[in-house]
Amino acid sequence: MINLTIALDVMGGDQGPLVTLPAAILAVENIPYLQLILCGDESVIKTQLSQQHAFPHPRISIMPTTQVVEMDEKPIFALRNKKQSSMRKALDLVQQGKAQACVSAGNTGALFSMAHFVLKTLPGVERPALISALPSNDPKQDVFMLDLGANVFCDSSVLYQFAIMGSVMAKEVNGIDNPKVALLNMGEEDNKGSDHIKQAASYLVANDDINYIGFIEGNDIFTNKADVIVCDGFVGNVALKTCEGVARMVYKQLQEIIKKNLIAQIMGKLLSRPLKKLFKPMNPDQYNGASLIGLRGIVVKSHGNANVMAFYAAILEAVTEVERQVPTKIKDKLEQGLCQKA
Amino acid sequence: MINLTIALDVMGGDQGPLVTLPAAILAVENIPYLQLILCGDESVIKTQLSQQHAFPHPRISIMPTTQVVEMDEKPIFALRNKKQSSMRKALDLVQQGKAQACVSAGNTGALFSMAHFVLKTLPGVERPALISALPSNDPKQDVFMLDLGANVFCDSSVLYQFAIMGSVMAKEVNGIDNPKVALLNMGEEDNKGSDHIKQAASYLVANDDINYIGFIEGNDIFTNKADVIVCDGFVGNVALKTCEGVARMVYKQLQEIIKKNLIAQIMGKLLSRPLKKLFKPMNPDQYNGASLIGLRGIVVKSHGNANVMAFYAAILEAVTEVERQVPTKIKDKLEQGLCQKA
Repeated sequence: MINLTIALDVMGGDQGPLVTLPAAILAVENIPYLQLILCGDESVIKTQLSQQHAFPHPRISIMPTTQVVEMDEKPIFALRNKKQSSMRKALDLVQQGKAQACVSAGNTGALFSMAHFVLKTLPGVERPALISALPSNDPKQDVFMLDLGANVFCDSSVLYQFAIMGSVMAKEVNGIDNPKVALLNMGEEDNKGSDHIKQAASYLVANDDINYIGFIEGNDIFTNKADVIVCDGFVGNVALKTCEGVARMVYKQLQEIIKKNLIAQIMGKLLSRPLKKLFKPMNPDQYNGASLIGLRGIVVKSHGNANVMAFYAAILEAVTEVERQVPTKIKDKLEQGLCQKA
Repeated sequence: MINLTIALDVMGGDQGPLVTLPAAILAVENIPYLQLILCGDESVIKTQLSQQHAFPHPRISIMPTTQVVEMDEKPIFALRNKKQSSMRKALDLVQQGKAQACVSAGNTGALFSMAHFVLKTLPGVERPALISALPSNDPKQDVFMLDLGANVFCDSSVLYQFAIMGSVMAKEVNGIDNPKVALLNMGEEDNKGSDHIKQAASYLVANDDINYIGFIEGNDIFTNKADVIVCDGFVGNVALKTCEGVARMVYKQLQEIIKKNLIAQIMGKLLSRPLKKLFKPMNPDQYNGASLIGLRGIVVKSHGNANVMAFYAAILEAVTEVERQVPTKIKDKLEQGLCQKA
């Protein structure tokens, strides 16, 4: 039985401790070998845990912090001025090897900047990436997409590294053997797209360890043509937010119909479920368990308005990444990959 | 009554003359001042028109051509080797001033390359753009988006020109006074996105003739926040194709529900309509009446599998752009704009 310690940013998220602490209790109750270090206001944590008869707890410890990163704070400000924050301390614990992963529902930009600064990137990784599993036509098979907004522009080497990182995530987290990796492009033909995408494609073709299937277009993100879809953070962010916009519009249009039609009203619930299901994961900030990968440690970003179950799910995501040793596997795969590229 | 002459690429599209000729007849029947020059196989055109008692017709003339641009042909090949094609001849007629617009359902890439080469860009326009009106939450108010794939990368000057061109289209074609123009970005804050987008924003802020509202994100494409959305061709193409993918997935999921549910089966038709309506316009190739703007002439691209009514709609789009003198208005607006930028 491995010893598994995760640091939680208790104060992060729209509801902070009201959500993170019940989720923490749920996690230690359900995972007998899980140790949690709760970073946040000591008195708040003690009071709330005691109320739920969860303090003291043999597998829960507290790292008292005095600052909170506000949800609307500029990342650079948080990086400079919030060294005593629950978010920063949780990351410090991972950097010091006292925890193997950090989970936060706090300010996304601040978390990325701090995580990058504190943990540093793995050898061979130029930039960390935000990766998330998206729904697809096959309910049993999610699709991993990266980068979802951590980097505005990515050159060919960075895209190549993302492809390798995404391939490891799909294999280790989703258990997909030899995952199909594709580059998102404006056409499927080899001559389409920018020079850096074509260059990244040539790197991937040369790498026998990656099951590179070529370029795919936006309309194939959800068709399970690929298990991993790679693009720069600008394109990934726009694509994902656009999905959210379409889902919203379709949903709105269906609601309009339902309003006007009696049978439809009876069916309303039935109709709205798949759309809600589709719509929810579309926004990287909202999607639970988005991970910042390529760092010397595991960082899982829960959405800011996560409820207890959603934050619990983010903790489980972190547990999986620790158990599957994702950063080590990425490091190994990158070392092979960089040899093949050279 | 202005004399209005449009050149049709009769041979273009999946069904060629079977679709384009009935649409042509419909157009001359409904628009009493419209002259059409039909570019294509003379005998095919004469035979089919005669069968429908539409030949000879006082407002229909024929430009006999001997070549056809195949739908899967490489643009560069078509440009070099198809100078006698119906597509090329239709564009030549516009360049020679014998027609004021060209409508084609043919090979998209070939049409762009040929149009750019034959017609050349307007003064002050570095690159032509593919623009299309997208559906939105307000059924009465479409949203114009450009570039949808004519250019992989666009620098700040090109994005600025697109904003002006799009603003003219929204005003002249959709009749929107002082249209709201936005740049598509990965965030709404001024510090978000690439340097060339920030630079384009500064140009737009300085232009009093453009109602620039700032950055918008993908989830606001359909919310009528903006009347014109500007991005480079890569991002626009990915965003639009992604819309199509989401619409397909939602549609598929709803079909699954409908299969499983009796009441839903009764409602099937009702449900599928708004999705079909939403889904259809999402693909730039499929969307009817996408225009290539910024050229010294009007070029409307009908989708390859257009039916008679769809190709007829593309002809009407061309008529509108001729009547509203879109290229001249773009030229004037750009001249003002470039002065303001300088």
